[in-house]
Amino acid sequence: MELSTQDLHSILEFTTTLARSAGDLILEGSQAIRSSGNVDEKKNSVDLVTEYDVKVEELVKRELSSKYPTFKFIGEESYAAGSRPPLTDEPTFCVDPIDGTTNFVHGFPHVCISLGLIYKKVPILGVIYNPFLEQLYTGVKGQGAYLTQGKRDPVKLPLAKPRPLPSLSQALIGIEWGSDRSQDIVRAKGDSFKRLAGNPNEGVQGGRMAHSLRSLGSAALNFSMVAQGGMDIYWEIGCWPWDICAGSIIAQEAGCFVTGSHSYPLNNEVTEEVLTGRKHFVIRAIGDTETEKGVDAQKRLIREFYETVEDVEAH
Amino acid sequence: MELSTQDLHSILEFTTTLARSAGDLILEGSQAIRSSGNVDEKKNSVDLVTEYDVKVEELVKRELSSKYPTFKFIGEESYAAGSRPPLTDEPTFCVDPIDGTTNFVHGFPHVCISLGLIYKKVPILGVIYNPFLEQLYTGVKGQGAYLTQGKRDPVKLPLAKPRPLPSLSQALIGIEWGSDRSQDIVRAKGDSFKRLAGNPNEGVQGGRMAHSLRSLGSAALNFSMVAQGGMDIYWEIGCWPWDICAGSIIAQEAGCFVTGSHSYPLNNEVTEEVLTGRKHFVIRAIGDTETEKGVDAQKRLIREFYETVEDVEAH
Repeated sequence: MELSTQDLHSILEFTTTLARSAGDLILEGSQAIRSSGNVDEKKNSVDLVTEYDVKVEELVKRELSSKYPTFKFIGEESYAAGSRPPLTDEPTFCVDPIDGTTNFVHGFPHVCISLGLIYKKVPILGVIYNPFLEQLYTGVKGQGAYLTQGKRDPVKLPLAKPRPLPSLSQALIGIEWGSDRSQDIVRAKGDSFKRLAGNPNEGVQGGRMAHSLRSLGSAALNFSMVAQGGMDIYWEIGCWPWDICAGSIIAQEAGCFVTGSHSYPLNNEVTEEVLTGRKHFVIRAIGDTETEKGVDAQKRLIREFYETVEDVEAH
Repeated sequence: MELSTQDLHSILEFTTTLARSAGDLILEGSQAIRSSGNVDEKKNSVDLVTEYDVKVEELVKRELSSKYPTFKFIGEESYAAGSRPPLTDEPTFCVDPIDGTTNFVHGFPHVCISLGLIYKKVPILGVIYNPFLEQLYTGVKGQGAYLTQGKRDPVKLPLAKPRPLPSLSQALIGIEWGSDRSQDIVRAKGDSFKRLAGNPNEGVQGGRMAHSLRSLGSAALNFSMVAQGGMDIYWEIGCWPWDICAGSIIAQEAGCFVTGSHSYPLNNEVTEEVLTGRKHFVIRAIGDTETEKGVDAQKRLIREFYETVEDVEAH
């Protein structure tokens, strides 16, 4: 099966509308959780989260399979079954119905649906919608990435002319504590964060004195934020393909460089190995300077970053 | 001088309008920084940040002193001069023109003006406006706290019925790496974060296995997020009175409990000692259960929290 530019345009339109419908359902779920304040109520919030996670996934799968019956589908369920079907060249939707479930439970308004399309084994289309802040991020291979805020017109990403980024010391870096809290992960992550933040001139060995570290709690929205240029870097251990599929193509189309763990070749290709590798890194578009091209700066900073952090294995 | 309810109503109206004007200026500054992408341009972004920080402060001071000539004013400048004038019983504005300057530089959309009013030595009115997300938070002593999103009607805070919070393991906790990156601070904060996140059953000694940790990069917006109920707790070392003055009254009016370091009496009073103490803690409104009143749960969790983290001195 071949996908034309016209096909992609039509898929983008359909998935954008679908993401907004999913967003309405997410807001409805959030309302339900918020009004379940009384402990005596029958349903507790964990039940409600599961209920709405399933509801959104069902909506998305039903709509997608009805409109695109021949496309494959990858989601949490595909892995939960234990088997990990290898990617084919066929169009494959890769969806996280609610990215940022912890935020969703708490009403922390950084929650989204992340809807990606993989074709010939790489992401080629991504739609991410945060209904709380009414922010829609889209990207299509070769056609750029956009942010649509509320009812405004779409704005091309990144939002600003790509500025230079001389070193990690000038970077705002997205990090997450994640859900795996075993000793080795918490130690490796915590120590890595300390080195990223610490001042080498005030006793922090290997410190990079980054501008600062931020944690929003949603991988898809972190990718979007780097695409937008609002964060310089996002690094994560423990994500699954559906967490980062849509985000990675949106980021690439906004001039970002996406890669996996330190051992991957630096070619900005989101291969099956990167998608499924549980380790992800994205850096924003960097402007060329007289002495260094933007892409060389991206690669240099990726190397500098991986010299700083500990590349522990995800469980 | 005595302030009546009517006076406070009028001050709220005036400061809200002023905060929105300041927000316009912040957005203008952000645009200027974003379009200064070329390194060859005369002004670099650090100059522009300073320029707009001063511009916003000048606007706010000019408008406030013209409308309320007898009110005092506390801001970064008051301290920069080296003297720290003690609080009086007189009405005193306490303002951070741009809270979240690092975010402002990077275009990370969590930036606000924080405008508080202290009277008889405690905060009694707060206005916080984030022009990027068009979120206005207000609070007046005895009159509740509100969030106004865009052009919608104000909504009373917290947004949801206060749910119980049995333990830190169920909390979403706001933390910040801050600007002080010396070895003792980075070690103490980093180790504290690891204990908050770590799983005690998987080897992390003293681990609390909190739901997760978030970092937005603005003290005022972290207070607002706890007031709203989107985060359960926010803990910070290193803030100044203008960072937390407006946020603390908004939080208190939303049912939060605000305190300083572990040594303060747990009476939810934002005294001069708390305001100037560089250590701050706020926990959201908690619903009563059959066995425990909400305020007792707040105090119990504050104690549990301070047993977990290291209460290092701010520089």
